[in-house]
Amino acid sequence: MQATIDYRALAVSGVQALQPYQPGKPIEELERELGITNILKLASNENPLGASPQAQAALAVALKTLELYPDGSGYQLKAAIAEKFGLQSPQITLGNGSNDVLELVARAFLDKQNAAVFAEHAFAVYPIVAQAVGAELRVAKANPPDHPTMHYGHNLANLSAKIDAKTRVVFIANPNNPTGTWLGKAELHAFLQGVPADVIVVLDEAYTEYVTDPDFPDALAWLAEFPNLIVTRTFSKIYGLAGLRVGYAVSSPEIADILNRVRQPFNVNSLALAAAQAALGDDAFLQRSVATNAAGLQQWFAACAENGWEYIPTVGNFITVDMKRPAAPLYDALLREGVIVRPIAGYGLPQHLRITIGTQAQNQRCINALKKVLAA
Amino acid sequence: MQATIDYRALAVSGVQALQPYQPGKPIEELERELGITNILKLASNENPLGASPQAQAALAVALKTLELYPDGSGYQLKAAIAEKFGLQSPQITLGNGSNDVLELVARAFLDKQNAAVFAEHAFAVYPIVAQAVGAELRVAKANPPDHPTMHYGHNLANLSAKIDAKTRVVFIANPNNPTGTWLGKAELHAFLQGVPADVIVVLDEAYTEYVTDPDFPDALAWLAEFPNLIVTRTFSKIYGLAGLRVGYAVSSPEIADILNRVRQPFNVNSLALAAAQAALGDDAFLQRSVATNAAGLQQWFAACAENGWEYIPTVGNFITVDMKRPAAPLYDALLREGVIVRPIAGYGLPQHLRITIGTQAQNQRCINALKKVLAA
Repeated sequence: MQATIDYRALAVSGVQALQPYQPGKPIEELERELGITNILKLASNENPLGASPQAQAALAVALKTLELYPDGSGYQLKAAIAEKFGLQSPQITLGNGSNDVLELVARAFLDKQNAAVFAEHAFAVYPIVAQAVGAELRVAKANPPDHPTMHYGHNLANLSAKIDAKTRVVFIANPNNPTGTWLGKAELHAFLQGVPADVIVVLDEAYTEYVTDPDFPDALAWLAEFPNLIVTRTFSKIYGLAGLRVGYAVSSPEIADILNRVRQPFNVNSLALAAAQAALGDDAFLQRSVATNAAGLQQWFAACAENGWEYIPTVGNFITVDMKRPAAPLYDALLREGVIVRPIAGYGLPQHLRITIGTQAQNQRCINALKKVLAA
Repeated sequence: MQATIDYRALAVSGVQALQPYQPGKPIEELERELGITNILKLASNENPLGASPQAQAALAVALKTLELYPDGSGYQLKAAIAEKFGLQSPQITLGNGSNDVLELVARAFLDKQNAAVFAEHAFAVYPIVAQAVGAELRVAKANPPDHPTMHYGHNLANLSAKIDAKTRVVFIANPNNPTGTWLGKAELHAFLQGVPADVIVVLDEAYTEYVTDPDFPDALAWLAEFPNLIVTRTFSKIYGLAGLRVGYAVSSPEIADILNRVRQPFNVNSLALAAAQAALGDDAFLQRSVATNAAGLQQWFAACAENGWEYIPTVGNFITVDMKRPAAPLYDALLREGVIVRPIAGYGLPQHLRITIGTQAQNQRCINALKKVLAA
């Protein structure tokens, strides 16, 4: 019998304190726990229209060669992304979801000697990937709850103030999850101009395709101006491929080369590569998804006005509602109604619930359930 | 215009020197380069029988919900693995291929302060994942070319000699890739007994299902005895699911908890989870795969004897042949014959080619091509 060892204490320091990401509750988990069916999940900002039909069709071919390793270079998908957005393939790093590319940035550029900066209420993956490599985590205060136009949104002055010689990476989500808040062209461009060139700025645009506001920036157009800029995108949201795990980063070829060195050789699987490539060209599906989301947001804005519910400004495919009381019991009550939403106490918002925009019928069911549990 | 910055110099030290893994050449890449068709790829130890039919069938259901995130906990697949091998789910860490779990071990336990030990000619991913986190790389000399029974195989005495207070992880492949060599029950058990309990031993069993030798160890049975042991397995080889990326680690629940903290929340995609679960129970396919491989190995052993080709002892689904001259020109000549094999100069074996065991017809085509290019 060998001596008893505390293996946690043997882990590297960043990992010892690591708390993993808490995903939205899966439908099958709720089925197991409560023994109910007909569950509506509005917890993970998935596309209520399903997946791109062109992606579905592309899978029929890819399914014939499951035994072959994927193309580790992602040659065809990168060419398709480059073609669509006027980029070059060497600017692109493919990821197993954009979570993967966010992690690659942290593993390539952060360690115990430097610091990562991000905003309060920002996407939870930024502190996780920075913590795992032992970097200092610097949280910039968000706009206050009484901010006139963008409460809980990223505050760029506060972000700038956290940047110093020790800072290596700044993570910004635009629009941000779980708040839905966003940054306009002029303010974000001015911010980027003020960031030293040796500080890498990750602009996470997971929800960008949903945004119709003409003042919303096209950050890909800024890459030539800012060699320290990394823009990340995903196929998990509007493309409806969350199950397949595909995201990507766009940057200078030099930064992409570094990220691709850290990347696992087959990080995106062969079905995911094929489906993503097909989805990229499915303009009809994208347009339907934007229209469905825009209508759903209007439905929610009207319901909030009617019921006196406050919410955070949003241009994403979700709305974050202020319950004005602890949200956890309401979340549990909604589960018993068969509706899964997202509690976000872990984001410093214990009285809010984040709700994905669904179809009109799904939205109505959720609105009705929320009215019921609030009245109980 | 901002100052020109050398972003490579800003990367963490381990990453600055990182050389990425070189995969086998994809068929479509050779098609693009040489404009030829009817290509035979025996370069990546893929299953020549394709994928498990039960896995194919399971995908039909999973394809209906591409828009939903995978179950991040992998509940059903872990339960199926636990059931099949007499384990508990909390012992299991799922990976995006076993590459992913190997990387999780490195990221959880290795950093600049400690060292990783592995054998000369061992699987290339061990030095890559250890280098990426800046750990010291210690390479134990393998058995020499004139070893009587297991030339180029791991030498356990040399591995033991590399372990000291700075050592945190030892990587062992059994059987090893790209050599095909293996370690027997008694010698490996004695080695594990000699490893301090605060040194983690990763036993990579990617090819274990092909081995029929009764002296080959069942390392899963040793987990209770060695709390520092991590056994890794994959669905990329005998299960024929290399395109889907599924592997797993089995360990104490305590170590699995640490690995699962570092793991990306959705590292295995939903189609991969479904296919792997189904493949696990497809005994008929596994038996056919073992039989096909055993017959193919005999075919190759006979061809080697007939042609005077020396090879490294193997129990895997590949054979590594000593060309007795620089292998790179032979590799290129085989490409022009439409046959992709694997050059392994990067493993310190510049005169060897690693060839995957295929069907009888595939093996014969490769043998004929090899005879032709050797005679040219």
